[in-house]
Parts: sequence; structure tokens; C-alpha cells
Amino acid sequence: MSNPVLVEVTRGSLVESRHRGAAAVVDADGATVLALGEVGAPIYPRSAIKALQALLLVESGAADRFGLGEEELALACASHGGEPGHVAGVERMLRAARLDASFLACGTHWPLHQPSSQALARGGGRASALHNNCSGKHAGFLCAACGLGVEPRGYVEPDHPVQREVKATLENLGGVSIADAARAIDGCSVPTWAMPLTALARAFARFGTGRGLVSERAAAARRLREACAAKPWFVAGTGRFCTEVIGHFGARLLVKTGAEGVFCAALPELGLGVAIKCDDGHGRAAEAVMAAVIARLLPLEEKDRAFIAQYVRPQLRNWNGTVVGAIRPTQALSG
Amino acid sequence: MSNPVLVEVTRGSLVESRHRGAAAVVDADGATVLALGEVGAPIYPRSAIKALQALLLVESGAADRFGLGEEELALACASHGGEPGHVAGVERMLRAARLDASFLACGTHWPLHQPSSQALARGGGRASALHNNCSGKHAGFLCAACGLGVEPRGYVEPDHPVQREVKATLENLGGVSIADAARAIDGCSVPTWAMPLTALARAFARFGTGRGLVSERAAAARRLREACAAKPWFVAGTGRFCTEVIGHFGARLLVKTGAEGVFCAALPELGLGVAIKCDDGHGRAAEAVMAAVIARLLPLEEKDRAFIAQYVRPQLRNWNGTVVGAIRPTQALSG
Repeated sequence: MSNPVLVEVTRGSLVESRHRGAAAVVDADGATVLALGEVGAPIYPRSAIKALQALLLVESGAADRFGLGEEELALACASHGGEPGHVAGVERMLRAARLDASFLACGTHWPLHQPSSQALARGGGRASALHNNCSGKHAGFLCAACGLGVEPRGYVEPDHPVQREVKATLENLGGVSIADAARAIDGCSVPTWAMPLTALARAFARFGTGRGLVSERAAAARRLREACAAKPWFVAGTGRFCTEVIGHFGARLLVKTGAEGVFCAALPELGLGVAIKCDDGHGRAAEAVMAAVIARLLPLEEKDRAFIAQYVRPQLRNWNGTVVGAIRPTQALSG
Repeated sequence: MSNPVLVEVTRGSLVESRHRGAAAVVDADGATVLALGEVGAPIYPRSAIKALQALLLVESGAADRFGLGEEELALACASHGGEPGHVAGVERMLRAARLDASFLACGTHWPLHQPSSQALARGGGRASALHNNCSGKHAGFLCAACGLGVEPRGYVEPDHPVQREVKATLENLGGVSIADAARAIDGCSVPTWAMPLTALARAFARFGTGRGLVSERAAAARRLREACAAKPWFVAGTGRFCTEVIGHFGARLLVKTGAEGVFCAALPELGLGVAIKCDDGHGRAAEAVMAAVIARLLPLEEKDRAFIAQYVRPQLRNWNGTVVGAIRPTQALSG
């Protein structure tokens, strides 16, 4: 397997680093619109499919039963920075289901948002599972378990009803069956199911359009998309790619990053889904690829073009703020 | 250019990510012992050559004049974690030359060592240039300027006598001439000069053996190697690869990481130097490649083999400490 170089990182007059990868753009019927590299090999979608994993939260009735609003639904789809507002939202979700942070099985890390991490330390605080970037997804799983009327503990186990439902949802959206052997353990301990990029892209096309979905699922997808578009800060956080890009384009797209260089998107007005995996797992490359795909596919006005350009070809600055290089897409990507 | 996949990252039953790269092992006369991938293309050595950049500190007489001990010399070769002991050492270097932190031109960032960063915040402190991982190298440059009897300010400029001397030293060690066009700006604002991996590896072979060097330079190299071997904590910090590996093998090797997937080493008993560049700039891959090269080349006893194995094939654990995958060298690397 040798995927094309999609992104180059320059310094001075040389290319310092290179990122290979694959990208698929697919419609809700599974027709491939764009394929770069090996798009049929299974990859772990990691956190890029949190919005798909959150469908159960709505479909189970838990979102209504617990009165979850747009902020909480966006948090269920989020890899958040652990900023105070994120933590407070996750606490609201748990409280609504009469649970607390001790139920979270995601593990503990300090807030990814550095000023929040420092403020936590400065105040004598300690990292908790609430600060884990996946805590909103986990709170969503816990609420969903309550919505299904099953025991919430053990919700990260692959045989728990929540994860069985999530797997069935992914199969429905992606139009594939997923073998048990395709399962690995994610950073936050939930199962991650390997799927081809084409199936992931198709899943996002369906998620973005409702095409091919039963009406209840299509409505749940719309509600989650609208929540993320209305509250993009809750999908990631201050200064982050997903928050900024959703903040700019609103309901025209949903973009979501995942660990190890995965990025997915729904582009509802085009009826398309996008799935990207950088071979080496580097997030900077996956971001640039996603930005380039958006710039290439989405009809853009001048202000949109100027906005997305800063993510397609970001400048690199050193600790003194001096421009030392840039990230740029290759010809293979810009087409 | 298509370098081989040298490192794979597994999760569950699949390879999740792949890292390509090149590696050169060369002797002091320039004879190539091992070449994987494109070893003739110029790459920026970044922080991997701090020990070579520190030669001037000794050769200029500044190390003696300012009474710098092993800790300070190791710091001049370091990418340190900004732990309190590192900061105190850099302050000693500056004080010895009657300078202070305001002379440091490396820029500011919070300590890379997370507990030190949190402790700094908890105590109401702020990040300063002293915490920059390159502050020891910069303090070394400042001392060297004083040793040369030139104005220390402006020491990061390519035409400053310190940087001109550093460039000439690199040309001497690597056995190459470096064009001005090969210059870019490093993360800490000093020049970084692109060189082929073979020249970098040769430079480390000479640094490790003194072969082909005038006696004053050979003695300076030995003094820096011995300082790093005696005080490995000052070369990186708690739990870091360079500190742990030098701590285990002592004067048998000097290993040093650089940004964007660069790693260099001297293996004096074999008369060899090693230079590695991962295409995508990922440090985890460069570490695994360096560990695999050490395991392949250096005569090892059983305890050495067990020690280095944990870096050749490190397990990957998630936030709950569950083993979710591993990093492993490919056949191309293990030979």
C-alpha cells in the first residue's frame, strides 16, 4: 500500500516533512465522487464518528427525557478542550440522568485547552474524567443507557446494549457489515470498529441528508447537526479547527476530527460525506486535507474562500512568532 | 522520493498508522555502513545536533572561563523539560557570564514536563524563556559569545560570529560545505542548516571518536560526551527517551532527538554515527527507529537487550492504562 503524499510541510526553501494519506468522498447511495489513495482498506474511525455514536442518545428518547439542549447534544458529539463550560455541560448531562462523574469510564487527563489546564492547576484543582476530551460522548452513552432502560455501568463493553446499538447504527449508516475482528479499543476505552473510508464517507452522507435512513434516525441526525451548528464551541473549543470551521459555515457542514489522522465531514447541500485518514496519524495533515476538500467541493463566496484558505495553507510560526514555514496541499489533493 | 515504512503502529488486529523514513549509519571517514531510504537528500537537523553546536562553548574557552560543570555542559546539549533543576542550571550558566534571562532569544513556552508546568501554574508562576526546551543551548551560545569576546546580543543571527563558527564546525564534522540557501529558521530562532543524513551521521561518528578532528575539537567533543553521560537528566528530563537511554548505556552512546522526526547518535565503540529522519516528522517513530538501530548495531548483554526492547516495541496504553496497541519496527528496519 502506498498512498499519495497529500500534504507537505515546508521550512525555509525545503520541504521538511511529508504526509501521505487517503480520502474518500461518497454520496448517500455509496457512489464515490472522489477517491485519493487506498479508500477500501478498513481504518479505525476513532473520535471522528462521535456524532454517529450520539444518534442513540436521541433515538432512545433519552435526549428528550432528560431535557438535553443544543449544548449537551453538541457535547455528545465533541472532542472538547476541557474548558470550564465543557465540564459544566457534561455535569448537566450526568445530573439530568441522576448520575455523576464516577460513572464515566473514559479515564482522566488534564484539559487539552492549555489555559484551562493552567487555571485548573493554579486553583489547586486536579484533572478528572470530566476533563477528558471524550467525557461528553461518555455522558451521552450513559444517558442513552438510561434511555434504553438498561444498567449504565459497563457501557464501554462491546456487548453492552449501548455499544451493540452503536455498532448496528454504524452498519446501517455505512452500508456495511462489521466483523467482530474489526474491533479495537479506543483511547477512551469504548470499542472502535474498523471500516473502509468509503463506508465512513457514505455514513456521513446519510447522516448529513437522511437519505436511506428511517425517519426517526434521519430526524435524530438533523437534530444533532443543528445542535453542532448552533453551538460549535461545544464540539471542540476555543481556537480549534472543528469549532472555527463549523462556526463559519454553520449548518452547511459538520466536520469532526479523530485521533491518528482521521477526519470526517458531512456536506448536506452536496449530499456528500467525506472521510480522511493520514497514514502517519498526524492531525495537522488531516486538518489541511479536510480544509482542501472543503475548498475544492463546497460552493464558496469570497469571504468563505479567504476563511478556509488559512486552514488549507497555514503558516508555521516559531516561539518568537517568526514565520518559518507552511503547510500546503500537494497537487494530488488540489486536483 | 519514497522512503520505506520503518515503523508501524498497531491497534487491535490492524496496523493503524505507518511511518516512513530514512536512516544512515556512517563512520568517521564517511563510509556508509547502513543506508535505509534516501540518505543523500538534505534535511534540517533541528535540535538533534545541539551537542555539535555546543562545541564552540568549550573550544572558545568559555566553559573553562565561566567554570561550567557537567550539568551546564549537558544543558547546552539539551532539549530539556523545563523542570526546576533545568531552569536553575540555565540560570547558573547565565549568571556565570554576567548575563540574565533577558538575553535569551529562544522565545517562551511552558515546561514540556507536565508536572513541572502544573506546579509552575499552581505556584502562580508564568512561563519564561528559561522554560523553553532550548534555553540551555541558548545560554551556551551566549557564554560562547562572551568567550569569543563578541557582543552576545544578536547571537541567533546567521551572520553573528557564534553562528558563523557553528556553521564552520558542522562543515568540518560532516565533511561537506553548506550553501547559504540551505538555511532555515529553527523553532527557537537560531539558523538550522540542511545537510544530508550521511553527512550528519559522519559528523556524529567524528564527534564520538575524535577521528579526523584537530585535537582541541576532539577534546571538546569528549568533554561534552562525558558530561551528557554523567548527567543524562540534564539532556532531556524525567522519563524522556534521551535521558533514559543515555542513563542506561552511559558513555557507550550519545543520542539526541530533534523536532520533525530527526534523531542522531554517536556510537563511539563502533566508530559510527547515526542520523534518522522520519518523513512525517513524528517523534514516536524516530524514537523507535533509533532504538531499533541501537539494538541492531551495539553489542548488547541480556539486560541491555531487555532495556532497549521497551523502546523498540513500546506498548500503547489508553487513558485507563489498558494496552490498546503497540509500536513496532518493520522488516526494512530490523534487517
